[in-house]
Amino acid sequence: MFQILSLKNGLDNVKGFYSGSTNVGLRKANSDGSTDGDVSFIRSESLCDVVSRFTTNRFAAAPIKHFLKYPANFQTDFILINAKNANAMTGAKGIEDIEELFGTLNCKLQITNPIMSSTGVIGYRLPLEKITTAFDAFDFNSKNSNSTARAIMTTDSFKKEICFKVELANGSSFHIAAIAKGAGMINPAMATMLCFIITDADIPRDDMDELLGIAVENSFNRISVDGDTSTNDSVFLLSNKQSGSYDKDAFREALNKITFELAMMILRDGEGATKTVAFEVKGAKNTEEAKKASMLLSNSLLVKTALFGEDPNWGRIASTIGASGIECDEEKLVIHYDDLLIYSKDQREINKDIEEKAHKIMKQPSFHITCELGLGNGAFTSYGCDLSYDYVKINAEYRT
Amino acid sequence: MFQILSLKNGLDNVKGFYSGSTNVGLRKANSDGSTDGDVSFIRSESLCDVVSRFTTNRFAAAPIKHFLKYPANFQTDFILINAKNANAMTGAKGIEDIEELFGTLNCKLQITNPIMSSTGVIGYRLPLEKITTAFDAFDFNSKNSNSTARAIMTTDSFKKEICFKVELANGSSFHIAAIAKGAGMINPAMATMLCFIITDADIPRDDMDELLGIAVENSFNRISVDGDTSTNDSVFLLSNKQSGSYDKDAFREALNKITFELAMMILRDGEGATKTVAFEVKGAKNTEEAKKASMLLSNSLLVKTALFGEDPNWGRIASTIGASGIECDEEKLVIHYDDLLIYSKDQREINKDIEEKAHKIMKQPSFHITCELGLGNGAFTSYGCDLSYDYVKINAEYRT
Repeated sequence: MFQILSLKNGLDNVKGFYSGSTNVGLRKANSDGSTDGDVSFIRSESLCDVVSRFTTNRFAAAPIKHFLKYPANFQTDFILINAKNANAMTGAKGIEDIEELFGTLNCKLQITNPIMSSTGVIGYRLPLEKITTAFDAFDFNSKNSNSTARAIMTTDSFKKEICFKVELANGSSFHIAAIAKGAGMINPAMATMLCFIITDADIPRDDMDELLGIAVENSFNRISVDGDTSTNDSVFLLSNKQSGSYDKDAFREALNKITFELAMMILRDGEGATKTVAFEVKGAKNTEEAKKASMLLSNSLLVKTALFGEDPNWGRIASTIGASGIECDEEKLVIHYDDLLIYSKDQREINKDIEEKAHKIMKQPSFHITCELGLGNGAFTSYGCDLSYDYVKINAEYRT
Repeated sequence: MFQILSLKNGLDNVKGFYSGSTNVGLRKANSDGSTDGDVSFIRSESLCDVVSRFTTNRFAAAPIKHFLKYPANFQTDFILINAKNANAMTGAKGIEDIEELFGTLNCKLQITNPIMSSTGVIGYRLPLEKITTAFDAFDFNSKNSNSTARAIMTTDSFKKEICFKVELANGSSFHIAAIAKGAGMINPAMATMLCFIITDADIPRDDMDELLGIAVENSFNRISVDGDTSTNDSVFLLSNKQSGSYDKDAFREALNKITFELAMMILRDGEGATKTVAFEVKGAKNTEEAKKASMLLSNSLLVKTALFGEDPNWGRIASTIGASGIECDEEKLVIHYDDLLIYSKDQREINKDIEEKAHKIMKQPSFHITCELGLGNGAFTSYGCDLSYDYVKINAEYRT
């Protein structure tokens, strides 16, 4: 038995961890005159086990390539994060730039095992001089999850920050907290996003890797904003064991909850998104086929624009399932919007009453579309959002 | 030796073929007060060999299912076409409705071998009574390619109609002409579109099937507006042999030219599209990998919005190639916009001069992006368009 409690102030609750940010001139002031950081850090008093999941993009960014050169049992006590520059497609120089920054960190601050993580525009060298000025500006003993969560944002419209305290039956407890960014270029396999999860749980490294894999598969790998996969997607899980407390089931549940809630926050904050939808495909021949159809529904422009238009046009849902190439039969297909039957072989043309009810469901900020194929036991749920004018605006104007 | 001449008035030039349309109340008047047809026909004096290519969507529409029940050597002399209703997801009733219409055609007009083709909204039964009124309104001896090409339009903003006269060295000649529709839901494999190609060439049926396959592969299967695949995509090629003239090479070239030009017209008319782009991927490990990357470029929302914003952000091109999962190497990759070098390992950050030149290229209604991977001989070109506010508007509002 265990209890999971939600706490405010994100990363600040986790024992022995510190975080903060500063603005070194990469990011302009906000429209209200306030300024967010653009370079930030997460630090632990003691070395942490670290496990990770990265983008499947073949042009993985320099910080990812750099991290992957570390041995499997590498431990870290410092993550350096910058926004506005992805350090991707920067070749060998991109990796040398990270090494130069780490050299300075070592000389100035005796940090020996750092990790770097970057997000922003592709194809430009890191502005090393500017980033280095952060090292004098950081307060390394600050607990400022709020400013760190804000400093990693790009086109995000709100910060994403979560903390759980897990209380075990034996009276001990541990914390797990995370911050994330990601608004566009979000695609399953994996969302374009950075996510930093820290814990003081006394978790073995093997459990960390196993449980992070499960958590990512059920969260970040099931959401889609625009079907694009970035060069920089990274999820890190760090544990410094300082609580001395651990229970595998409790940790699994808390971690799944954190990654799922962050994934839903990322989706809600999808560029220009006005609503999120769960696409559940069940009764497919097998899981793989259910996944194929569910993912295509999350990614279909015609489905996404119909969602934005709040048009209860089930034809686009059906057509997309048909286009996915999976086994399906229009005589067996049944489609629901939330609990409302919207298509079956006996109800092909929807009347005004159903249309109005469907319209009401679609006006919600979030709802559920279930497609029952009636062929087998394969089931999969993915999560998508609508496509609005603002998506086009944000992405046509980004960078310039 | 042969010559291919372009003729006006599309279908009207082809010997022994007639076409026309009428408005039976499915389609409203245009904003300028004019009225287009919504039911149309293409007729030949004599029975034609007919070959076809259809959608890969598993929920193929009733007219496609109906056609596929005909024997392989089926001959036709009549195509009945309606807009505004796809007759898709209509089950057995959808096929019975076609049979009922064909029964009436037979009784009234002694048409024994008709084909039907439909486009429009999914999930509604055909309005049989209205469509039947067309049979009295049609002038079966009219040559009215213009009105037929307009009657098959849905969200198209202009009609798509082409005719070539092919003059052979022996003094004989034949015609090949086509009309097409398709503006959104255009995806390779196959574009959502209807295309009717007719010819008086004395072409053997085997050649028809072989050459149509090649032509479709190099045209409609290489364009993408939005990555969706419809339930109704159909291409028909009919030949009544009335010219007595034929040459395989000449026919192949004329047919390829017709389908390619129609495909480009469909792309230019892509919903909300303001420009079209050829995505050439070469130097890939093999053709399959080149195709995978090229198609993903045509479909990427981030690429499409960058095109709309005329932002020379090669990072999105590179990231999309990386995301396609094909073998690639950032040290070997070279990207050109038209003749302008935009990325190579020696030119990662683009200066103002290049940025301005790139911007000028992107302002054109159509340009070429070439990605040389430097790994092998695999090459593929697909054709895409940008994604604008109007795409969202058209698709959020369609149907309602």
